[in-house]
Order: sequence, then structure tokens, then C-alpha cells
Amino acid sequence: MTTDTCRKEIAVEIKVGRSAVRIGGICKGAGMIQPGMATMLGFISTDAAIESSALKRALKIAVGKSFNRITVDGDMSTNDSVIALANGRAGNSKSEIRRSQFQAALNFVCLELAKMIVRDGEGTSRFVALRVRGARNDREAEAAARAIANSSLVRTSWCGGDPNWGRILCALGYSKADVDETRIDVGYAQPDGRKILFAFRRGRPTNVALKTLAKITSAAEFDLHVDLHRGQGEFLLYAADLTENYVAFNKGDITDPATLGG
Amino acid sequence: MTTDTCRKEIAVEIKVGRSAVRIGGICKGAGMIQPGMATMLGFISTDAAIESSALKRALKIAVGKSFNRITVDGDMSTNDSVIALANGRAGNSKSEIRRSQFQAALNFVCLELAKMIVRDGEGTSRFVALRVRGARNDREAEAAARAIANSSLVRTSWCGGDPNWGRILCALGYSKADVDETRIDVGYAQPDGRKILFAFRRGRPTNVALKTLAKITSAAEFDLHVDLHRGQGEFLLYAADLTENYVAFNKGDITDPATLGG
Repeated sequence: MTTDTCRKEIAVEIKVGRSAVRIGGICKGAGMIQPGMATMLGFISTDAAIESSALKRALKIAVGKSFNRITVDGDMSTNDSVIALANGRAGNSKSEIRRSQFQAALNFVCLELAKMIVRDGEGTSRFVALRVRGARNDREAEAAARAIANSSLVRTSWCGGDPNWGRILCALGYSKADVDETRIDVGYAQPDGRKILFAFRRGRPTNVALKTLAKITSAAEFDLHVDLHRGQGEFLLYAADLTENYVAFNKGDITDPATLGG
Repeated sequence: MTTDTCRKEIAVEIKVGRSAVRIGGICKGAGMIQPGMATMLGFISTDAAIESSALKRALKIAVGKSFNRITVDGDMSTNDSVIALANGRAGNSKSEIRRSQFQAALNFVCLELAKMIVRDGEGTSRFVALRVRGARNDREAEAAARAIANSSLVRTSWCGGDPNWGRILCALGYSKADVDETRIDVGYAQPDGRKILFAFRRGRPTNVALKTLAKITSAAEFDLHVDLHRGQGEFLLYAADLTENYVAFNKGDITDPATLGG
């Protein structure tokens, strides 16, 4: 698998049997937070020979792991769309698609595009990969992750580079996930770093120095790990901070009637 | 009923039988958005002679119509509390309480305190009384109101004094209320004003001039009326805008370890 990434564009090439198959994708806008009535558009094209139903199924899987796992400001758009087109030019056998890396490649293309949308979110200054583990099930893990990532207080703390755990626990408390505050872990890590530094563990603040934690959370990107220790449910969500620039950008210009609907 | 209002304090006096009964209340903080782990505290005192169970019931009713109908940033606190105390000094007969204005007076005290919290919300510049009508039931009306009032895009448009209807429709669309966009009305009015100016009616923008609408929405307080035309459900929610000052205030100061938990 080779990649060629630039801003909100990506292409990969895989082998399907003996044929080289390419998948390309482009994305429009800063996702749910665009002012023009919030539009996220993604277009994927491939020269794979693939049944329409198989491509639809593959796209649904890829979108579930990518575009449906991002949030900038919690405002769902009225017209988010991801479209995949295949023209068969690669000449591969359709039956070989299932045994190939096609699904993995499509997942990768969608995920990279989705992350680009968050990184380009209006006024955002930080990109946070939020991993919730240990929920009673995946749905509760998702509810916990979305409560954290859409909390104005959590998002402003990210803006300040603050390794705040109190606001995270607060959001977990009002989320629909079942939590026991005496079991919760909250930790920070550099992107894809192996070492998690815990700010809060099993219901108590740790002794890790604030400065050490803040070094991680004041970078442009970091990972946030939350473990509820209640079960096997997990969810990964890509999120962004809330900044003064976001507010300034979205206050709108009421001298322009064209902004009225968006 | 007489009132004596100053910032987050209020007192009223009513007659219960022949006795003068007083109810006073004070509130702490800017509600759910306080940085010190988000604390809203309300204390009500009265000299009424009233059964503990009757006071509890009356307080529950009053809180349901006041403190539970405000939002500043959608972040529920870990420790919101409203406490009512009665010492019986007024000397009224407990049996007369039910026929008196006591419930109405308690509702009034709680509602006025609740509104003071929103008006004093961190960094807020606008106070919006949001009235949703015509939902299939009250629960859907509440869901619709909360989706609108907690939308970052709607709240930033309020900050800009923008009579935007598009973002309101967007929030209604992703709320859990059943809506038909071809029936929705969105209108603005001066506080407690009788005349609603509609920006959007039965699924279409109106001809009301943007300048005329903006004159209402650029004031410090205005009413927002949404009618879904689907049933009899309604909900009134007091909300605030999202400003740069809110973000600046809540970014936190990571040089101060005391901020880590809040």
C-alpha cells in the first residue's frame, strides 16, 4: 500500500490478484462546522472492478470507522455525503476483491480524509484522538466519547493546552455511559505513542507532574485515553478544541443577507 | 406580591390567610459553566409554616419550571443543588398554604434566580428566551429546544446578533424531535413583546427585512419562537450565546495546578 497525501486528498494503490487497483479520495470543507449550512462532502474513486453492492457494503464499513468517528463542534450537518465511484479500469477479477486489501485500503482512505477534516476544522488549534475503553459496551463507549468531545468546557481546556481531568470526569458523569468514578483512568500520550501518562487513575489524581502532562497536551496533536473499567466496550473518536477563532468565524456577518440561512 | 431584586438575590411577600409569608432566595455562580468544576447553588428560605413534604413537593415543581430550564453551555454540573428552608415564623396555618399563592411565589423566586444565572453566564452577551411550540409532546419540545440552545453554531450566531434561521433548522433536524421542515416557523420578538416577526414560516424564508430582524436579535435580550406544527408539546428554555470571552475564560491557566481538577 502506497500513499500520496496532501490536504484533504489521498490515493492508495493495492494489488488485487495481478492487477494494480487504485483508490483516490477528496474532501470538501471543514466538516460539520462549515458556515454555509455545514457541509461535509467526500468523493472516493477507484478503478477497481467491483460489484456495486460490494462497493456499497465496503464503503459503509469504511465510513463507520472514519467519517462517523469525527466531531468538530457536535453540529451534525444537514447534508453530509460520501460517494464512491468505481469504473473497473484496473481489470481485476471481481471475485478477487474480497480476498484483497481493498476493504483495508478503503478504510485507510476514508480515515485519512476524515482526520484531515478535523485538522482543518474552523479555528481549531488541537487535534485529539480520544480512545475510550472499558465501557459496558461499544454504544456506551461512544456515548462517553461524544460527551467528552462535545463538552464546551473540555474543548476550551484543550484550547488552553490544559491536561484537565476534572472536566472529563464531569462529562463522563452526565453522559449516558454507566460509570463508576472510583475506577476511571484518564491518561495522555503523544500521537501513536506507546507510553500513556496518567493524570487520574482508579478515581484519584496521580503524582505525574502537571508540567509533564502539559508538555503533551500543549502539542498540536495528542491522544487522550479514558478507561472506565466496566467492560469490553470501546470507541475511538477524533475531536478538536474550541477556540476564540471558531467563535469569531461563526458569529456571522449580519450585513450580508446571504448568511441568513447558514 | 412584592419583589426586591438585585443580582442573584430575590425576595417576595405573599398573604397566607391573614399571615404575611416571605420567601427569599440567593444563588451562587454562573451555573453549569463555572470553572471550579461547574457549580450551581441555590438557597431559598421562607418563614412560612409548611409541612416538609409539602415544601419538597412545591420546590420540585418550581425547580422543574426554572433551574431545570436553563442552559449556558450544555455542561451539566457534578453538584448542582437547590435547598429550601422554612422556619414557620410567619405563623400562618399550614392548611392554608395550599390555597395560597405560595407555589406561585416559589415558582417566581426560582425562575428569577435561574434567569439571573443565565444573564451572568461566563462571557455571555445575550439572553435568549426560547419557546418551542407544536411538538408532538413536551419531551420532544424539550429535545428540540435543547438541541437549538446547545448548538455551537446557533450560539455563535446569537453572539453576532444574527437572526439566523438556517442553523436553527439544522439543529432541529438532528434533534430527537420529529420535525417536518415544510411546517416549521421561526420568529423573533422583543422580550415579552406580543409581536413576533417571522424569519421563516411554513418551511420558507419570509420577506421580513434582515435589518428589521437584526434589530431584535442584536439587543441584549430577545425571545426566539419556534413552532413545529406537529402537536401540542411545548417547552420554554432560557439560553445564552457563545462568545470569545467564554473561550478565553475557560482555556484555563496551566501554570496553576489548582485548575487541573476543574
